[in-house]
Amino acid sequence: MKSNLIATAAAVLFSAVVTAQPGSILGFSKTAADKQLSTEKKFDGNLKAKNIDQFIKDLSAVPHHVASPGGDANAAYILNKFKSWGYDAQLETFYVLFPTPLTRELSMTGTTNFKASLKEPVLKEDATSGQTATQLPVYNCWSADGDVTSELVFVNYGVPADYELLARMGVDVKGKIVIAKYGQSWRGIKPKVAQEHGAIGCIIYSDPKEDGYFQGDVYPKGPFRPELGAQRGSVEDMPIYPGDPLTPGLGATKDAKRIDRKDAANLLKIPVIPISYADALPLLQSLEGSVAPEGWRGALPITYHVGPSKNKIHLKLSFDWQVRPVNNIIAKLKGSELPDEWVIRGNHHDAWVNGAGDPISGLAAMMEEARSIGEMAKAGYQPKRTIMYCAWDGEEPGLMGSTEWVEFHAAELQQKAVLYINSDGNGRGFLGAGGSQALEPAFTEIIKEVQDPQTNVSVFERKRSADIINATSAKTKNELLSKTTFELEALGSGSDFSPFAQHIGIPSMNLGFGGEDDGGEYHSIYDSYDLYRRFKDPTFEYGVVLAKTAGHTTLRFANAENLPFDFRNLQKTISKYVTEVAALADNMRENTTVENKLINQKHYSIANNATAALLPPVTKDEVPFISFASLQNAVTALEKTTNALHELAVGDLSVANRNVLNKKLYQAEQMLLTKDGLPRRSWYRHAIYAPGFYTGYGVKTLPGVREAIEQRNWKEAQEQIEITAGAINSFTANLESAIAGLK
Amino acid sequence: MKSNLIATAAAVLFSAVVTAQPGSILGFSKTAADKQLSTEKKFDGNLKAKNIDQFIKDLSAVPHHVASPGGDANAAYILNKFKSWGYDAQLETFYVLFPTPLTRELSMTGTTNFKASLKEPVLKEDATSGQTATQLPVYNCWSADGDVTSELVFVNYGVPADYELLARMGVDVKGKIVIAKYGQSWRGIKPKVAQEHGAIGCIIYSDPKEDGYFQGDVYPKGPFRPELGAQRGSVEDMPIYPGDPLTPGLGATKDAKRIDRKDAANLLKIPVIPISYADALPLLQSLEGSVAPEGWRGALPITYHVGPSKNKIHLKLSFDWQVRPVNNIIAKLKGSELPDEWVIRGNHHDAWVNGAGDPISGLAAMMEEARSIGEMAKAGYQPKRTIMYCAWDGEEPGLMGSTEWVEFHAAELQQKAVLYINSDGNGRGFLGAGGSQALEPAFTEIIKEVQDPQTNVSVFERKRSADIINATSAKTKNELLSKTTFELEALGSGSDFSPFAQHIGIPSMNLGFGGEDDGGEYHSIYDSYDLYRRFKDPTFEYGVVLAKTAGHTTLRFANAENLPFDFRNLQKTISKYVTEVAALADNMRENTTVENKLINQKHYSIANNATAALLPPVTKDEVPFISFASLQNAVTALEKTTNALHELAVGDLSVANRNVLNKKLYQAEQMLLTKDGLPRRSWYRHAIYAPGFYTGYGVKTLPGVREAIEQRNWKEAQEQIEITAGAINSFTANLESAIAGLK
Repeated sequence: MKSNLIATAAAVLFSAVVTAQPGSILGFSKTAADKQLSTEKKFDGNLKAKNIDQFIKDLSAVPHHVASPGGDANAAYILNKFKSWGYDAQLETFYVLFPTPLTRELSMTGTTNFKASLKEPVLKEDATSGQTATQLPVYNCWSADGDVTSELVFVNYGVPADYELLARMGVDVKGKIVIAKYGQSWRGIKPKVAQEHGAIGCIIYSDPKEDGYFQGDVYPKGPFRPELGAQRGSVEDMPIYPGDPLTPGLGATKDAKRIDRKDAANLLKIPVIPISYADALPLLQSLEGSVAPEGWRGALPITYHVGPSKNKIHLKLSFDWQVRPVNNIIAKLKGSELPDEWVIRGNHHDAWVNGAGDPISGLAAMMEEARSIGEMAKAGYQPKRTIMYCAWDGEEPGLMGSTEWVEFHAAELQQKAVLYINSDGNGRGFLGAGGSQALEPAFTEIIKEVQDPQTNVSVFERKRSADIINATSAKTKNELLSKTTFELEALGSGSDFSPFAQHIGIPSMNLGFGGEDDGGEYHSIYDSYDLYRRFKDPTFEYGVVLAKTAGHTTLRFANAENLPFDFRNLQKTISKYVTEVAALADNMRENTTVENKLINQKHYSIANNATAALLPPVTKDEVPFISFASLQNAVTALEKTTNALHELAVGDLSVANRNVLNKKLYQAEQMLLTKDGLPRRSWYRHAIYAPGFYTGYGVKTLPGVREAIEQRNWKEAQEQIEITAGAINSFTANLESAIAGLK
Repeated sequence: MKSNLIATAAAVLFSAVVTAQPGSILGFSKTAADKQLSTEKKFDGNLKAKNIDQFIKDLSAVPHHVASPGGDANAAYILNKFKSWGYDAQLETFYVLFPTPLTRELSMTGTTNFKASLKEPVLKEDATSGQTATQLPVYNCWSADGDVTSELVFVNYGVPADYELLARMGVDVKGKIVIAKYGQSWRGIKPKVAQEHGAIGCIIYSDPKEDGYFQGDVYPKGPFRPELGAQRGSVEDMPIYPGDPLTPGLGATKDAKRIDRKDAANLLKIPVIPISYADALPLLQSLEGSVAPEGWRGALPITYHVGPSKNKIHLKLSFDWQVRPVNNIIAKLKGSELPDEWVIRGNHHDAWVNGAGDPISGLAAMMEEARSIGEMAKAGYQPKRTIMYCAWDGEEPGLMGSTEWVEFHAAELQQKAVLYINSDGNGRGFLGAGGSQALEPAFTEIIKEVQDPQTNVSVFERKRSADIINATSAKTKNELLSKTTFELEALGSGSDFSPFAQHIGIPSMNLGFGGEDDGGEYHSIYDSYDLYRRFKDPTFEYGVVLAKTAGHTTLRFANAENLPFDFRNLQKTISKYVTEVAALADNMRENTTVENKLINQKHYSIANNATAALLPPVTKDEVPFISFASLQNAVTALEKTTNALHELAVGDLSVANRNVLNKKLYQAEQMLLTKDGLPRRSWYRHAIYAPGFYTGYGVKTLPGVREAIEQRNWKEAQEQIEITAGAINSFTANLESAIAGLK
């Protein structure tokens, strides 16, 4: 009934939009499609918002970080639920380093004496905010132990470009403590870059511009960060490798071989702490020196200066560096025909505190999916392939549970994993989805049939309308109006898809809804059930929508006769990336030439504003011409192959041939892994996607090539072009062999 | 010596820049050029920063608004100085309406009771801030009398687009009091648009984002607006007509015919008052309703809401509506050969309070120019044409002194005025210059020979470097690098050039330096000598630079054999404007089509964010195709004529012919005046430039055409295209007759 409603609405509003023919689904014969649609209808019928509400309430009732009593209780709750729904479920435990704070002191002495509170207040309007005995206090996990005293310098977001501008202001952070604001880059980049520049300590604060009163009313009146709210979070250098720092590349079983902590390449050497804007205010007020550039200024009622301060800042931090258990829950529903092909769905269960939004809102949707399928299974339903539900532990400190599990099971996963579907929280609003672009046509078909609860259109249409309205030019609006396929974002990092996609090449997705759920509760004690039901998804209907979206995706890939990967979309996307990196080099060449001219002709000195003086930038080496030919040839060859693959009459294949082909298809992306991984971070092996070395969560596509260009390492850029082209060519050859094998 | 220095620096740094050949000046024969350069050298040699310092100190010693004792004393001081320097100087008095405040009350009752202070505190660091007995209090001149009580609504900058967005938020200001922030539009637009939308009162406040702590340290630590600083200023509807509201188009002599105040089309019907951000804070905090859109939010530490408030705001204002004298000082130095050709230099002398920066810093430079020329005259020097110095009164309430003088002397000025050169304040930094683009080549020559005091380059080069550095694309930077001619900005309004240029078609310029003198003292008691010498031009050297720039321009036009107007530059500029308005219509057509489609297809409803809900915009009439052919043909014909005029061998002309031609040239722009003026504001008669009906000071080029398109009045747009083309054709025909007259 729902898909009829949607089809009608869509036909009225967007006659240009091609909707699926009734009864026709990519990867399914007519008969199989009818059965599948009936299965999905049953699946939808079982989903209940009140269950999602209850899961969120139960699982966010107490703090449940790694190795906490609340975490253990939640793991047991989840395990029992899966078992009760008929799954073959078990705990799978790894043992990872996980530091918790012992000492946290931040103070200032000089013209003003100040001691930071480092404490989020209990609110009578928030029932769980008073669970102070079991809350992890505000800290950055993987800060070094340290006891440092120095002047303070404000470094804006703390990304490399900020230090370039500081240098032009004549400010050096060497031997100083820096204060950076949250935002723009992933938090772990801030102390890493500070450390690279010689800082001896780092403070990260939540400016009210980012998620405080500037954005909206603060909690409890509204959902935004109150003055003493602060953001916990990991500062493990995940762009080097995620997971247990002591067991890179290996599953952290009890007796795994561990490296020494001091040798862990993804750990900081300097102390770092996150603070609230109330705690930051006196520190920022103590800064002298230049007025901060306009883009650096936040929403505090002060003139932002960059420093250094004359006052001395004292930061003392120490941690309890223990190896502790992380408990993944792995629940299987065995496939009837292809039990050794796995469609995997995952969401983590650990939180920094109560975590109603992050991660429980995503986990609750996933559990409701599993419950619905479990109910169907009890009535006799069996998927063709094995469906696996994974509730990961230890995501917050650094994707611990998922990474160790993937590392431990890597060989088996590379044989069996068809698709990994991740979520990490959910809220009211618009679909957000990333993943391998080969999934786009099948996923588009799915999301055109899932209805948005607040409008009379599909979640596809709602997101498309938002994209159109948010576009800034008539040209882009017109282009988007004619778009019929959803474009999956490239995956960076920041959640449990990373080991699947980037370490072992499993086709992966990350799903969630949001945009009408903005707030400032992230990683604070206020990410609570009380806040969630007021501001994030008051009716829990977007939990149901996520369950439908992820559930249909799971069921389609679990039951498809011909796995609906369309590598033409991936080819188009890679081709776009190739165009981008070539344009990046060209733009850098043009900009470098003109900037060097401006510097040499002293235009910077002449134009210098004496009241906001800046030293001229330094000249940079001119950008040589780089050959992108091998990449361009590789994507051209890939285009032919993906077109040929699409022309195959897969419906006529024997079951045996179809199974051979399917396996080739789901394993295909593994060919895009490179032997040596990325330079200086070999854990990341995917030639097309990686988190940025200096962006953290933010993706870099064609990362070897793009980052070499960005870092002006021309020799490496050329090498990486060849390596990446080689990976694409292997991918193409593998698809060619799949085609040939059928002839 | 200076020009050699500059030529060397320029040659080293910018080999592509063409500098004037030594001894060659546009408009001068070789012999005359040598004499002129020697004159200018003498002129420069007389200029002294310490005189400018002293003038600023003397003339800002006490408050000196219209009809105040301080104003009278300053007028006498200026008059005496000019006389002492040998000028034929006199006071020329007009009698204009000028309201001063009697009652000023602003309060709030409800959940919070609050009474606004409306008072700028005395600062011990600022010697004149304590002259409270003679300061005009904080007010908006030309506010209506009123006593209103209602809820408050925040309207951002208070421009029409803000009300469109308010309507989409479901907020109507009818019967409400609005609060707008200073910035973006000229202040007078804010109550005018509020009144158009049915508001019954208007408050304008200075958000710290605009010129308070967000921008830099506040006074007295730095130059920015302190929490109780407020901006006085006129809200006369000057885009209708400036000057005395009671004598539109006529000089306001003692017995001029006056209209009734209630019939004055440029006066408001609602009360309006400017307040500080300390006074605004409790008012803004009282607002309920939607969170203000991001672009609306300022730098106060609150969540900005749009309202309405539940609390009631009470605003009571009354004024003493008296006709009072404004005293212009007009000082002449008679021309030796062409006494009936006038080169006019002006700057106002009235201020809102002490006005060290606005207007005295500009006036002081002008006086030093006059003093230098006076000194030369005492030694026997006589300019070829008459030089006239004008110190205007009553500029602050609405260009009173200059407008009434121009209206009174219009016929004579249209015969005799060669050029009007305006300034209105000055500070450290970069050249800013606007005016008729026919002046560009001559002015470029001048500013390539005036050296910037802080760098080793000319003021032309310094400004060009700043433009290059501030450009955002390599393409624009490269274009600017090859630019050798300074581009004059089109003149809008906001100073005394307006009656000259836009009412009677006199070629005009507006000059000033700035950019290293930012502050928040504008129209407050803190625009003082103390602040000026600390933050605006500490060494007064930029006063000397303004004197050189304006002085050389005055002397060139006073002495030129062939007046160096180059109408090719004006033609190119008009041609660019024609391209712009045609593109404006095309863009509006494309945008209207796509926006109407988005509205009709309900994309706005579908994309609506429930937590920041907006009604869809309303559809607009589709944009018809408009013919720009007559304008395009007019600029094409003008191009031929201006080229032919440039090819004339003016050096071979007899003195008589040359004088005939010169007069044709300086009167040429009068042909660009239209008979009926602009629609609904006939005082503005220039077809190319006007202040915007909804921007105030901000210029609209081809105003009749551009504003008709912007206001979607397609019929009027077509009419105005024909009228504007007609004016350009008359201008062309007049130049053709000048050429023909010489053959």
